[in-house]
Amino acid sequence: MSFLEFLLKELPGKSVPVATSGTTSGHAAGEPFSGLVFSLIQKRFPENTFKQHDYLNWLYKNNPRAESAEDRHNLIKNKPASFLLSRGKKPTAEWNLSNLYNEKQNDTSDTLFIRASEYHILDTKTTDLTKKSQPPNIISAYKVSQLCDLMISTSDFNSVVITYIGISWQRVSNKLVCRQCYLKELFRIPPNELYINWAAAMQIQFEVDSVSQSFEGNTRLWCRKYLEFFLKSAIARQKEFQKKFIQPFEKYL
Amino acid sequence: MSFLEFLLKELPGKSVPVATSGTTSGHAAGEPFSGLVFSLIQKRFPENTFKQHDYLNWLYKNNPRAESAEDRHNLIKNKPASFLLSRGKKPTAEWNLSNLYNEKQNDTSDTLFIRASEYHILDTKTTDLTKKSQPPNIISAYKVSQLCDLMISTSDFNSVVITYIGISWQRVSNKLVCRQCYLKELFRIPPNELYINWAAAMQIQFEVDSVSQSFEGNTRLWCRKYLEFFLKSAIARQKEFQKKFIQPFEKYL
Repeated sequence: MSFLEFLLKELPGKSVPVATSGTTSGHAAGEPFSGLVFSLIQKRFPENTFKQHDYLNWLYKNNPRAESAEDRHNLIKNKPASFLLSRGKKPTAEWNLSNLYNEKQNDTSDTLFIRASEYHILDTKTTDLTKKSQPPNIISAYKVSQLCDLMISTSDFNSVVITYIGISWQRVSNKLVCRQCYLKELFRIPPNELYINWAAAMQIQFEVDSVSQSFEGNTRLWCRKYLEFFLKSAIARQKEFQKKFIQPFEKYL
Repeated sequence: MSFLEFLLKELPGKSVPVATSGTTSGHAAGEPFSGLVFSLIQKRFPENTFKQHDYLNWLYKNNPRAESAEDRHNLIKNKPASFLLSRGKKPTAEWNLSNLYNEKQNDTSDTLFIRASEYHILDTKTTDLTKKSQPPNIISAYKVSQLCDLMISTSDFNSVVITYIGISWQRVSNKLVCRQCYLKELFRIPPNELYINWAAAMQIQFEVDSVSQSFEGNTRLWCRKYLEFFLKSAIARQKEFQKKFIQPFEKYL
């Protein structure tokens, strides 16, 4: 992600307008920064930078003979990348020129950077420096499990890099000003330091600024370690669920 | 909830200003209607109508000798009502005059209506008529289980009534206009018609406009039926969790 390092210098001091009313949470309030990050990257790398849905629209438009969901999914040759970027079978089969994709909240990336067959999934996470809040939702722990499973079964460990761009901001009159910027790669976080919030849609949650990058192994090892971690966490969740949500009420069955 | 029926006449046609930017979802966009509902009820029943946090502030202020969490929780004599309205042990013990409660997103009620020892928990849920969207989060299915368990163990089935006020709105230039209003009581919805979204923080989800009110039994029976339903749903969730999130990855352990 060294190509992103320019953001560490360019972002601090930059601002975005206050977009929403006071009721929105810190994470939603910072959303305009995602657009700023996208435009900075796109300006620097216009050939490589896409919005995820625009990339799919472009890809399917230029490959009109791929019409089935399977054929369209295969247009992205690296299976792990295709898994992260494509939509489900039905919306993929139903895509057509008069029914292009729009941005979706659960698209994996805010910004997609493609170079050769390397797909960089970039996602901006913002924090209000003046508020103590819960760590943001990062990505579905289940989606990461499926990804790791696929990377192992296809031995494809190089096509996907997932990087989080953390922005800490402060409100100054009617603007939000970026104070700090952080770049963190998912595959460098020690898997057993991750936290899965099972109740909150199985989201991995962390603060981008403080998350560790000390994992030293290769991506194959990361996938193995992550799957072990996921499985242990899932089994612990099963036990907790049984104890908290089933046992106390069994007398009523 | 017959005292609320005036809302069915008064609300349609009323409007609130557009509060937020385009990115907010339908449910958040309709939030200003909660304030309108509160003010209409308060205007009509000024003695009986409270914001949940204001009620607790008032109660603790007027009972300065109750200082422990337990004593403060006991200020609301009906245990089911105390369970729904009070905050946890720590924030209850830490409450003091220079540290009053503010509104919290997971307070059970938008509007609290108290008459004798009947606590009406009122919650406004809004829908954008022009958008097809997921049914809103109503209340935690686990919180309802705990409530039912408590109602049964204390034989107190009359102190709490939970009513949802559904508002369907349309945007007209810079206003949101209420087109329809609905009143639905939780204890009149057949429990086995409820849907629990386990992944989404165990929330019960339904559209207020279309949810049935055909449960004919008393509240004691509702509690029994709900607990049976909750338990069956929790057991089914356990099985699905095992099959989807554990079995496929067991080979990695």
